[in-house]
This record gives sequence, C-alpha cells and structure tokens, in this order.
Amino acid sequence: MAEKLWGGRFKKQLDNEFYLFQKSIQYDYKLAMYDIYHSMIHISALVYTKVLKVEEAHKLEMGLLAILKEVKAGKFKYDPLSEDIHTEIQNRLEKKYKSIALKMHSFRSRNDQIVFDEKYYCIHQGLDIERLLANVFVSLFELAEKYKDNFFVGYTHTRRAQVIKFSNYILSFGRMLERDLKHLEYYCKNTEIFLGSGALAGSFIKKEDYDKAIKVFIKKYSQDFPFKISLTRNSLDNVSSRDFIVEFLSILAILQTHLSRLAEDFILYSTKEFNYLGLPEEFCTGSSHMPHKKNPDFLELVRGYTGRIHANLFAVLTIMKGLPLTYNRDMQLDKEPLFSTVEIVKSELSILARFLRGIKINTRQVDLALEDESLYATELAEHLVGKGLPFKTAHEVIGKLIRYSEEKNVKLTDIVDEILKEFSPHLNKNEIKKIFSPAFAVQTKRSVQ
Amino acid sequence: MAEKLWGGRFKKQLDNEFYLFQKSIQYDYKLAMYDIYHSMIHISALVYTKVLKVEEAHKLEMGLLAILKEVKAGKFKYDPLSEDIHTEIQNRLEKKYKSIALKMHSFRSRNDQIVFDEKYYCIHQGLDIERLLANVFVSLFELAEKYKDNFFVGYTHTRRAQVIKFSNYILSFGRMLERDLKHLEYYCKNTEIFLGSGALAGSFIKKEDYDKAIKVFIKKYSQDFPFKISLTRNSLDNVSSRDFIVEFLSILAILQTHLSRLAEDFILYSTKEFNYLGLPEEFCTGSSHMPHKKNPDFLELVRGYTGRIHANLFAVLTIMKGLPLTYNRDMQLDKEPLFSTVEIVKSELSILARFLRGIKINTRQVDLALEDESLYATELAEHLVGKGLPFKTAHEVIGKLIRYSEEKNVKLTDIVDEILKEFSPHLNKNEIKKIFSPAFAVQTKRSVQ
Amino acid sequence: MAEKLWGGRFKKQLDNEFYLFQKSIQYDYKLAMYDIYHSMIHISALVYTKVLKVEEAHKLEMGLLAILKEVKAGKFKYDPLSEDIHTEIQNRLEKKYKSIALKMHSFRSRNDQIVFDEKYYCIHQGLDIERLLANVFVSLFELAEKYKDNFFVGYTHTRRAQVIKFSNYILSFGRMLERDLKHLEYYCKNTEIFLGSGALAGSFIKKEDYDKAIKVFIKKYSQDFPFKISLTRNSLDNVSSRDFIVEFLSILAILQTHLSRLAEDFILYSTKEFNYLGLPEEFCTGSSHMPHKKNPDFLELVRGYTGRIHANLFAVLTIMKGLPLTYNRDMQLDKEPLFSTVEIVKSELSILARFLRGIKINTRQVDLALEDESLYATELAEHLVGKGLPFKTAHEVIGKLIRYSEEKNVKLTDIVDEILKEFSPHLNKNEIKKIFSPAFAVQTKRSVQ
Amino acid sequence: MAEKLWGGRFKKQLDNEFYLFQKSIQYDYKLAMYDIYHSMIHISALVYTKVLKVEEAHKLEMGLLAILKEVKAGKFKYDPLSEDIHTEIQNRLEKKYKSIALKMHSFRSRNDQIVFDEKYYCIHQGLDIERLLANVFVSLFELAEKYKDNFFVGYTHTRRAQVIKFSNYILSFGRMLERDLKHLEYYCKNTEIFLGSGALAGSFIKKEDYDKAIKVFIKKYSQDFPFKISLTRNSLDNVSSRDFIVEFLSILAILQTHLSRLAEDFILYSTKEFNYLGLPEEFCTGSSHMPHKKNPDFLELVRGYTGRIHANLFAVLTIMKGLPLTYNRDMQLDKEPLFSTVEIVKSELSILARFLRGIKINTRQVDLALEDESLYATELAEHLVGKGLPFKTAHEVIGKLIRYSEEKNVKLTDIVDEILKEFSPHLNKNEIKKIFSPAFAVQTKRSVQ
Repeated sequence: MAEKLWGGRFKKQLDNEFYLFQKSIQYDYKLAMYDIYHSMIHISALVYTKVLKVEEAHKLEMGLLAILKEVKAGKFKYDPLSEDIHTEIQNRLEKKYKSIALKMHSFRSRNDQIVFDEKYYCIHQGLDIERLLANVFVSLFELAEKYKDNFFVGYTHTRRAQVIKFSNYILSFGRMLERDLKHLEYYCKNTEIFLGSGALAGSFIKKEDYDKAIKVFIKKYSQDFPFKISLTRNSLDNVSSRDFIVEFLSILAILQTHLSRLAEDFILYSTKEFNYLGLPEEFCTGSSHMPHKKNPDFLELVRGYTGRIHANLFAVLTIMKGLPLTYNRDMQLDKEPLFSTVEIVKSELSILARFLRGIKINTRQVDLALEDESLYATELAEHLVGKGLPFKTAHEVIGKLIRYSEEKNVKLTDIVDEILKEFSPHLNKNEIKKIFSPAFAVQTKRSVQ
Repeated sequence: MAEKLWGGRFKKQLDNEFYLFQKSIQYDYKLAMYDIYHSMIHISALVYTKVLKVEEAHKLEMGLLAILKEVKAGKFKYDPLSEDIHTEIQNRLEKKYKSIALKMHSFRSRNDQIVFDEKYYCIHQGLDIERLLANVFVSLFELAEKYKDNFFVGYTHTRRAQVIKFSNYILSFGRMLERDLKHLEYYCKNTEIFLGSGALAGSFIKKEDYDKAIKVFIKKYSQDFPFKISLTRNSLDNVSSRDFIVEFLSILAILQTHLSRLAEDFILYSTKEFNYLGLPEEFCTGSSHMPHKKNPDFLELVRGYTGRIHANLFAVLTIMKGLPLTYNRDMQLDKEPLFSTVEIVKSELSILARFLRGIKINTRQVDLALEDESLYATELAEHLVGKGLPFKTAHEVIGKLIRYSEEKNVKLTDIVDEILKEFSPHLNKNEIKKIFSPAFAVQTKRSVQ
Repeated sequence: MAEKLWGGRFKKQLDNEFYLFQKSIQYDYKLAMYDIYHSMIHISALVYTKVLKVEEAHKLEMGLLAILKEVKAGKFKYDPLSEDIHTEIQNRLEKKYKSIALKMHSFRSRNDQIVFDEKYYCIHQGLDIERLLANVFVSLFELAEKYKDNFFVGYTHTRRAQVIKFSNYILSFGRMLERDLKHLEYYCKNTEIFLGSGALAGSFIKKEDYDKAIKVFIKKYSQDFPFKISLTRNSLDNVSSRDFIVEFLSILAILQTHLSRLAEDFILYSTKEFNYLGLPEEFCTGSSHMPHKKNPDFLELVRGYTGRIHANLFAVLTIMKGLPLTYNRDMQLDKEPLFSTVEIVKSELSILARFLRGIKINTRQVDLALEDESLYATELAEHLVGKGLPFKTAHEVIGKLIRYSEEKNVKLTDIVDEILKEFSPHLNKNEIKKIFSPAFAVQTKRSVQ
Repeated sequence: MAEKLWGGRFKKQLDNEFYLFQKSIQYDYKLAMYDIYHSMIHISALVYTKVLKVEEAHKLEMGLLAILKEVKAGKFKYDPLSEDIHTEIQNRLEKKYKSIALKMHSFRSRNDQIVFDEKYYCIHQGLDIERLLANVFVSLFELAEKYKDNFFVGYTHTRRAQVIKFSNYILSFGRMLERDLKHLEYYCKNTEIFLGSGALAGSFIKKEDYDKAIKVFIKKYSQDFPFKISLTRNSLDNVSSRDFIVEFLSILAILQTHLSRLAEDFILYSTKEFNYLGLPEEFCTGSSHMPHKKNPDFLELVRGYTGRIHANLFAVLTIMKGLPLTYNRDMQLDKEPLFSTVEIVKSELSILARFLRGIKINTRQVDLALEDESLYATELAEHLVGKGLPFKTAHEVIGKLIRYSEEKNVKLTDIVDEILKEFSPHLNKNEIKKIFSPAFAVQTKRSVQ
C-alpha cells in the first residue's frame, strides 16, 4: 500500500486484499496525461488564489512536465501499489518538492479531477478515431474507384435480389461510417470539460481566477487544448454524471455494429460458395490441424468484438442505473469498459484501412452470378408497368412466370412467345433478353443516378 | 390470413401458425400516419412518372386522407389478420378504388417504406419528448425557485458530505436533462428521411420527379413536415441501416438513467429515516396487507423501467449485429423495443412534471441534519489553509480531530481551545463555531456563485 | 379506476395517468390460473385457522372454480381498469359473496401471491417447453434418419473444413437442445413454490394448517400439481427474490442462441450459392417489389428474436440490481420480459418442429461440393503420419502442396508422382485418389464411430 | 511473431498489427494448467495409437510436468509474442525435444483443446467459488447467531413495513446464496469434458484408446480430476458450443445480483440517517478533500461490479448469437469476459467473508426505530380479524385510524378509548399497547416459527 491522499480519521489499516481490490492505478494510469493537465491549470489558479507562490507553482509545473514527458514518450512507470493516478502523481511530486506539493490538492477533489480526466480522454480519443475513420474512407473510396465500372449482386434476406453497382455496394458502408463520423464530431465539439466542482459543492477558488488560469494555460499549451474548458455550471451534476461516457460508448457501439456487418458480408462473399471477393492473405490465419485452411480471422474477430463493445456500453449503463447523487465509488468501474472499447475500435479501424486495400473482386465469378435470371424479375415486372399493367398485377404475372420456369426447369429467356403470351400479351422473348442485362437493370434505377 | 402484397410464385399456402408468427400489424399499425405520408408523396411522384393520372392520384389521396383522419382521431381500426401496415392500407384502398390502387405500389418497396415510416416516427416522437421535457424543466425550476433560500445536505457515497443549496441540488437534474434535450434536438434536426430506395437498388422514378413531389407535398401539408426529406443518397445503406433507431434508443436510455437517479434520490430522501422530502400522495399506493403503507410507487416504477429501456436498446443492437446487407427480416423486430421505450418515457415525463409540483421539503428535518458537524470538516480544513497550512497537512489535522471527537464522544464545537491547540495552533473554538454554519460553508464555494 | 385492495389511509384520489401507468392487469391477467390456485390453498388454510367456516370456504372455492373454468376455456375477461389480477379476482368474488370475500385476504399479501403465481407460471410453461422441445427432437432425428447415409460438408470459420456425415451435423443441434432440455428439467424439478410469507414477515397461519391445506389440495387437484409446494423457509427471501425468473430466462436465452445458430446455418445452406438445403415454401414469404423472391423469413425471425430474448434476460437482471430488501415495486416489471420470452420460444419451437419436416437436402449439390479436394487435406497429412512423419511436418508438407496446386492451378489428384516426391517421398497419386473420398475420410474418424 | 502451428500454405507474412490484434496468449496463458492436462491424456492416447513410443511419451510428459510445476508455483512465464497457450506449450516442448514434440499435435486440433481447457477452467473455478461461498455462509451464520435475540426493522419499498428478527433478515441472504451454491454444484457435477473432436470431424484415435488414456491418467493424477471426462458424443457440437460458459456466467450473474442487494442494504443501513449497522473501518476509504468521510467503498464496488458481470454474460451471448457451425474465430473472445467475472466474484466473496465478521448492529438505534407505531399496523388489523372482522374491513379501519393519528399528530397508543370506538368497537388502548411490541408482533408470525 503506497502513501494515500486521506487517512487522518482512520484508526485501522486497510485490509490488504480489499486495498488491492479497490485500487485503480493498474488501469487509470492511462489517464496520466489528462490528470497532469488538470493539475497544471489548478496550480495556476492556486497562484491567483494566493495559496501558491509563483516560484512554487513553477517548480510543481516543472515536476508535472517531467512526468508528462515520460507519458508522451511511452515511458511512464507507476508504482503498482499506488491507489490511483491522482495519488501516484501527487506522491511523485511530494518526493521531489515535499512541502510545496502538499499544497497542490487545496480546494479540489479527486471527484472533480476524474471527470476532467475522463472527458479529456474521451474527446482526445474521439479525435483520434475520427482520423482513423478518415483512413478507412480513403480505402473504401479507392476500392469503389478501382471497380467503378463493375456490377455486383445485391442481396436482401441473404438471397439474390437485384443487380447493383459495386461502387454503390461498397460505399454504402462509407455512408454508415460517415454518419458515425458526424456523430463523433458533434460529440467532440459539444462535450464540455469543467473545473471547480470540488468534491461536490464547488471550490474556494473564484470564477475569475479559474478563468485566468484556463486562459493562460490554453495560450501556453494550446496545441493540446482544442477543447471547451470552463468553470462548472453545476458542481453536483459535474461530479455525478457519466452520460458523456455512455454517449461515447453508444456512438462506438453503432460504429462497431456497422463494422460487424461489413465483416459478415465479406466473410460470406469470400467463401468458396460465393467467391466474389478475395481477401488479403496477410490478414488471414491457418489451422493447426487442417493444412488447407485460410480463415478470415480479422473479419471474425471484428464481428466477435461486437459482443464486447455492446457489453461495455451496457456495463456503464448498468453501473449508473439508480445511483444516488453525487459521486459513488461504483463509478470508478466506468474506466475499464471505456478503455476496452476505445482500444479495440482503434485497432480495428487501423487494420481495416490496410485490409480493404488488399480486397480483390473475382469478376468472373460475379459475372456468372449476374447471369442469374431471377435478378431481373423486378425489371421485367416494371417493364409491364411501362406497358400499362398495374404493378401489383405485373408482380403477380411475373411471379407465376417464374414458378412456371422453375417447374418446367426452363430459363425465362428460353420460353417461347406463345407461352409468354399466356402470362401476358405484353411479354416477348426478345424484349426479355434485352431487359436481362446488368447494364439495363442498373440504368432503370433512375432515382440513384 | 388477409390479402398479401406478394404470392404469385408460391405454390403452397403459408403455414397458419407461421403466418401469425411473422405478421406485424398488431404493432406496426402505430406507423399508419407515417405510412400514409409516404404513399402521398409516392402517388404524387407516380403522376410525374406518368403511371398515375391526376384524377387517379386524387382519388387515392382522398382515400389516404380518409384513413389519416381516422388515425388522428384515434379511431383507426385494422384487420388483425393483415400482414402489416403497408398491406393494410393497400387493401383498404383496393377495396375502394380497385384497379387504381393496384398501381400504387409501382417502383417502391416495403423496404423503403418502413425506413421512411420508422424515421418519421422517431423524429415525430422525439419532438414530442422535447415538449414533455420542457414541462419537467418548468417543474424543476419552480421547485428551485420555491426553495431558493434553503440549504440542503449534499451526499457522496450516500454519506453526508457538504452543505449545498437546495436549488443547486434540484437543478443538477435540470442540467442532466438539458443535455438530453440538446441531444434530442440534434437528433431530430439531423436525421434525414429518404425516398426512392426501392427494395435496395433504387427506383425507376427520377430524382426530379421525387423532388417535385416532395416540394408540392411539403407545401400542402407543411405543418406536418418540419423534417428533412429528400431522395436517398445510397439506396443500399438506406434500406439496410437502423442506426437511427439505436441512436434514438441510446439518447432515451441516457435520459432514463438520469430519471432513475432522481427516483433513487427521492425514494431515499422521503424515507422516514432521511425524511427530507414529502411525496405527493396521489402518486403513491398502499399495501393490501399493511394498512399504514404509503409507497413511492411512481419512483420505483421509473427506476425499474430502466431495465426495460436499457434492454430495448440492447435488443436492437443485438438484432443488427453481424447482419449481412441489405434488408433482412430480423429487422422487423426493431419496432416493439422502439415503441416500448418511447411510450414508457413519454408517460414518465408526463407524470413527472406533475409529481414534482407536489414535492415538499421538510425544512425542519433538513435543518436538523445541517447541524451535523461533520458537514463542515472540509471548510475547517480549508480554514487552516487560509492560515498557511498546506492542504494535505490540514486534511490530516482535521481527520485526527474528528477521530478524537468520535472517540471522546464530544462535539467539535465543544472542544476547548487547549485541546484544539494540540491538533493545530490555528484552531480555536470561536472560529470553529463561525465556520460551522450552512451560510458560511456555502459562501466559501466561490467557484459556483 | 376499479375498487382497490387498499386506501383507508389515503386522503387523495390517485392521479389518473399515474393509475394507468402503474396498473398491471393488462399483462398479469395471464397469471389468473396460478392466482386462483394460491387462493384455493389459502382459503383451505383459513378454515383450519378458523377465519372461514367450511361453508364459506366452499362458496369461495366455487367462485374461484367458476373463474378457473373461464380461464381454461380461454374466455376469461377482466376489467381493464382493475389494478392487477389479485384485485380483479377479489373484486369478482366480492360481487358474488360480498362479506365472505372480504375475509379472503386475511394473513396473506400480494407480495406472497405474486411470487407463487410467477413461480407456478415458470414451471408450468417450462414443462410445456419441454414437450415442444421433444417434438423438435423427433423432427431432427427423422431428418437424420432420412439422410443417414449422406455425407455433408463440415465448416469452420464459414470455410470448408472436412467431410462429415449429415446425421452428425443435424444431430449436433440435437445435442445442444438436449442440454437445454436437461437444464429445463432440473429447473422445473428443483424450483420450490412457497406459501406463508405474508407481506415479508410471515403469516399468522400455522405451519401445520398450511401443510394440511396443501396436502388436501394436491389430492383434489393433483393433476395440476406435480410441483414442489411448501411453507416458506425464509419469508424475506421469498418475497424479495426473482432469481427463479432470471434462471428461467437464462436457460431460454441459451436455447434461443442455439436456435439462432441453426437459423443462420440454414439461411446460409439454402442460398443459391451454397444450395445444400431446400426450405419448405410454406414457411417462406415473398417481396412486394421483387416477384422472384422466396425469403427464409422464419429463420430470419428466429435469428432476430435472439435480440429480444437476450434483452429480456438483461431487463430483469437490471431491474433487480442493487434493489434493497424486500419487495419493491420495480419488481412488477419482471413480468412482461418473462411472458415475452416464453411466448416467443413456444411459437418458435412449435413451428420449428414442422419446418424441419419440410427440409430437403440437394444431394447433387452437396456431392459436387464434396469433390472439393481441400476437404481431404487433413486426411492426406494424417496419411503421412501413418508413414512415420511427425504431424507438424506432415501439415507443413501438405500446406506447401496445396499452395503449389493453387499457384499452378492444378488439382491435387492430377499432380504426377515425380512432382509429389519433391514434397514427400511418401506421396503418390494413387493413394491420394483413394484418400480423396467422403467414405474414406469419414471412416478414419475412429473416435466418433 | 513467434513460431506458429500453421503456415505451410501461406505465401505472405502476417501483417504485424493484425498479428498482435489476433493473438491471445496475454489472457489465455491462464489456461496453461488445463492445456497441459489435455496434452497429457493425448500423449498417452498417441502411444496406444502407435504414433508415439512409450519413451517418447515419457519425455514429453516430463516436459509438460516441468511446465505444470511452474504454473502451480505461479512462476509460469510465456513468450508474449506466442500466438496462444497451445502454441506456447508446443514451442517450449519443441525447444527441448525437437522431433518428438513435432508428433504431439497428431489427430487433435486447437478447436478441441480450447473447449477442454475452458470447461476444465469453469469447473475448477466453480469448485473454488463453492468453497468461498461456504466461508461467506459461515460469516452469515455467525452474524445471525451473534444477534439471534435481536429484532429488526423489515422494509418493503424502502419503507418501514413490519418487525422481523435480525437473524431472519441476515439469513435471507444465506438462502439466496444457498440457491446459487446448489446451482453451482449442479453445474460442476453435470458439465462433461470431452476429448477426441479433432478440428470438428473427430479424430483418428479410437474410442478404446482414448478411454484407456483417460483411465490411466485419472489414476495417476486423480486428485486433480474429480471431473467427468470422456470421449465426445458429437464432435461438431463439442467444438461449436459455448453454452457451458454462458451457463456459468449466468449463475455468477445471479450470485452477483444477490451480492449487489446485500451491498445496497448495508450501504443504506450504515448511513447516519438509518444508522442500524456499523461497517468495519478496514474496508472503508476516505476522501482526499473531505477529512471526515468514511465511505462504504467495498459495498459500492460490489454493487458497481454488477454492471461488469452482467455485461460479461451479455458479451458472450452476443458473440454466439447467429454464429454458423462449427468453430469461428469470434469464439476466442469468450475468454476475457469469463476470466473477468470469475476473478471479480472470487475477490468479492473472499473479502466479504471477512467484511461480514466486522459488522455491528447499533442496537440502540434499531430499538428506537422499532418504537415506530406504524410497524404494528398490520398486527392491529389482524387483531381485529381475531375479533371477527373481515380482514379487508379491518385493513380499512386501521388505515383510517392511522390517517387520523397523522392528521391530529397523536400517537396511536395515546388515542383514548372513546375515540378508538368510533373506528371500531373492538379497539381499546390497553390491547393496542400490548400489540405494539416487537416480541408480540414477531410471535404472531406463526408460519415462520
């Protein structure tokens, strides 16, 4: 057990197993950077409040910058027995600047710090995910461009439905992810980071002093602060609420659901049975038992991680359900689900951008499938509408024609005009042949051109 | 089994139990209004496309308006054996305008209609919920105003923490709901409703014709259309995606979580043990066994419904996980969770606005609690900071003082100066007495004034 | 608002919207039968306790039996403004036997009744589901029997893996459902139904009197009571706990997950691309737009309902999380999720048993797939183990051979011995040909014969 | 990237980021012990199948035992770049016994191993949790024994309801956990561990050989094998199914929900407002800002972890939903949720057993609460039943009496007989006084004695 930030009123030592159960340093060390930022602003405000002298504040700032440097270099080492990241940083500073450091925690609380840290983390990671999404877009557009003249088989109910353009197919995922991106942008722009809530009731530091401290700090470290930071408007709400985490996790849950559908489609389309897509080998793995296997593991893991990412959202929702105001220790447990989702999504997007570049269409196989006559049944019915039949009647006529062709085991384009007439006087073999082509079918979709 | 919109190619009758299992009219009848709107625009576009004559379109429109009137009057009756709302309305029109009605479904698909209907529903209900939230705000502000001079006990960890103003307490819920409202506003403004996707591949109707139809329609029925309606940008995405439902359900899940916390607090604060709040009797119920009971049922049900509302979100996420493009029948099952959440939240908010107006503070009991000396421990420590002690040292000093007072069973304000000096030379009885008042404590929270 | 079971101490009328919000008759009417059983035993115990005279008890019993008859005939009509099923039945009896009925609720509470009712429901429905599962087994076995000599393509990672027997494939679902059945049997046998908890603290009725009442009742209505009914062992636990619901919902969630996998497989195997299975037309539906469609709607709905059924489990878990003892009104909300899951699962199983009888294997298409040489790669590697090669080496050898055959675009069975020797001296064309047969491959799986 | 168990057919190196994304050694190393057991039996079977010589098998077994020793001593170190635990152990043996080790993976697959490992883990941990639960029982019984003569306040709706015995209160949790224990026992006894599934299609090793190998092994290492191990009955089911994990997680989710309710109650009862229970200080923590705080962190964390543990269950359910047979890579992701739940529950139970020993009742405060007259309202109504009033009438009478006492602000025991008579001729002050005692109230609960 390392030095703690409290304890005067306690007679007994903490139970050791309980101490290990309750400490959070093993995961909240990931918030080190954001916690340092909080302390920097706070120190500055303490100068205005006359709790710290300028030179004291300067020393503490130097101490914090030294830790920050470690963090940014990926070299931050923490005492695994520290209670949490706030305590860890405090202890580090105390070792260096003993009595000065003891003043740092005046008029603030870990309740206030942790919300600051987590919000900062969410926005910071959100911006990162925006960048990764942009890379995926580039890959999707490149793929659409590469195959811009290719037709593709469109499915409903995992059944062949109608002919589509491959570019429309692949860019439908682009549209989904575009909404996710907008969602993220809204989130990152509108989530406000607050200071000055104290434990729950507010702080002795005046609004003006906080404002000055924030202003100075943004000027000094502006590159790191494209964020909305200000004094809390309701300190009770600020230390109590975690909707900013739930909102972030729900945006990422939707994004993940989109990825899971791309994964499912690509798994399907790359089976030997569909065989429309070739997957890049460097993202597949083999079997220890069956020498021939090349499995779509990346796609399967993306699909599978949906379980975790949905569950992480529900973990935080469940934690927050029915909690009395304001801060409760339950809320410590919001971090692991948050970090888990962020880390998984970032890996997935980073790999996906490269994965997509390795996708190849087996155009021969797709073309073969496009010969399937049922793909043109709708256009045939609509052709009859052009001849004056009400659509519902046309639909019925073509439905019966298809049933006939199946029962007789004859292709629609092989049915002779005499028979066709029995279904509708408007049908003839030559016109059917004209209609039954990908280019014709796609061209009749005038709404999407 | 009523007349269906398909069937030509089928030899066999549907299995009857399966028919009942798969039909959706028993819940999607709630989409009648929106489905009629879709048909109105569609009919108009069919005129431009020359599938319907103006007078035919007029008749169908009259037919639709007649149904709409029923719907708006709450008198809409549907055939319980209809397959779904689209079929129901089609069948109604066929009965009236036989051959004309058969043309109505040209160049469109139920896949396209249902997305239109559900999006319209979400935005429409979203706007309604905004109005209900506004009423709750009014009640919260009235409560804050009524008790604007009252202090209150602030809690962390369900333990007395610091003195706060009651208005800050009650308005902390206002702040939470304000974020939910903003979230809803963003959603309602930015969710786009599309037409022209067909089954998945688009429609024969030209962009210009759709645009004209939408324009005319908005002009005619503008009061009902403050929404973004336009031609689909990617028809595959449009019929495949349900993120607009997940997003809506996640906004409402967060809102519900906020309500659950208000409920928990009010349940607690209205126990005989806390006794801070009096609940309005007309929202409580009794026990069939225990004659004295007056239970906070409204609050308990609000808290309990959180389970359902979280689960509804989870249901739709799970349904959509890993579904191949484009439409799959699984997606029919998004409706019941959606409707369930919307209806529960609307009832809760509607009742809550009145419930809050009946809340009374038992000021005597609150004042008694505010005499608890531990509530001022933080201010006492901060007082020592004013005397030059580093906060961490001050925290330790006061912690030990509290332990002393507990062990000796003596009030802090009764400890004599001699003893106080042993803890810190800066402590004296008179100053402690001054500090130990709600007004003093609140006034030192300069950040929130 | 109908007559309620409480109210003496209330000055004000309930708020009307709140009354509608809180009443449960619209769903708990489904518990009528079980609630009547509770009253029957209770009445009998009240005779022993001397609160009811024998002839009074007899009248009430007649009244209850009359309602029970309605329930069993599906003709039970309830007042939609009754608060709940307990109140509804009480009010019905009061109308008939005024003053006698007023005694019925002595020494019991709705808290006690509802647990009795719900437990009885769970076990009763559980037994029903067991019977439905048994029917599905029969269908699975019939299918296995019908195709008992057929080989099939075994998949891992949705990729062709090894040859299997069709019967093993189809009976793998049988094994899953068998575990679900055992689970259900355990549940139905071990869930104990209790009486005598009162509101929470127990009842004035003595153990002996309850025991006699239960005994008499079981004798009289034994066909309905193959259940464990006894006096509560801890009344607080009994009115507080709902783990019997969570347990039931988790058994059904696992069962549903199994069904979802069968659904997924069958959707896949019945695509035109796989084309292994033909689905019975009477369980498919068509498209309103595309005349050729025959969609696997039953399977899709089964897969989709998984979202609801998982969510129902989650709803009840969330409701119960962190609830203080004993009964809380939140617990009323356990019913709708419970009923929803039970009703969906029963429909699914009932339809599935018939659906399976309509399944056909397209043996020609399966045989074609079984010619895929990669399916025999494992057997080829194991053949080399027979020749003395360590398996890992053999795996490597065959892996390279497959890569060669792909790069050269030559079938494995067409590679000449000279080339084969370069991979391993133990390979020769004739032996490969022998190995590459379904019968041979399956026969080497000696562990499963 | 370390040496892998596959790769012959691959031309390209795996993408490095993908390799890191897909490897599982960082968590599945926890299965080392169970994986070694699998190999031990397998090696033995390979001797009977004549793939390994006795002395080769002996060497491999020595190698495995050496690793097992490390594992049991907590000193097992793995190569963090190994793909998974199976590969890690294989690589370790290869380094020592090069060519012999290459034979070890004959006729088995990681698909088969991982199910064996995970099932073994579940049962093994399940037995551990049974032992921890037993310790909690002891603590609960000790607490019940210590306060066996104490009365307590029973609650419904977080409102005072009736007087109960403290022992009944505390043992109600015992009853809940007892059901969890039975559930666990059933699970551990009935979950069968299988061998011989191969990748999916079975193994070349004969049933008899496996049986012999299992028998020999159980004899040799019997202390570690109180489990049901046998040859698979359906190899496809065996490698496909994870219901044994979902079932385990659902048992633990129910157990956790019970713990969360104990936590909630104890948090409530130890507030200054209730003040019934004193919590052991060594399981509480303080505040960095407020020197007086002593927070019930252990209880809050237990309550909060419910979110994680419910979510872990849902993660695995979601992962498995709609997965085609047989093994899919998604299933790798079942491990982290499983391990997370097991580790949290074990810590909680271990700490809880000690925590409970530190609980003290503040009997003075409880006695004060027991003076609350409303606690005896039910007994008073039942007293009137004894006088011949129908219960519903008695309930009404007492309800009105309570309302009177509240409006007049007079204690029930202070109302004079004249007034009492206006409510009922059967009421008199002396009898009321007798009834209004904890001992009397509890003694009338004849059903629970």
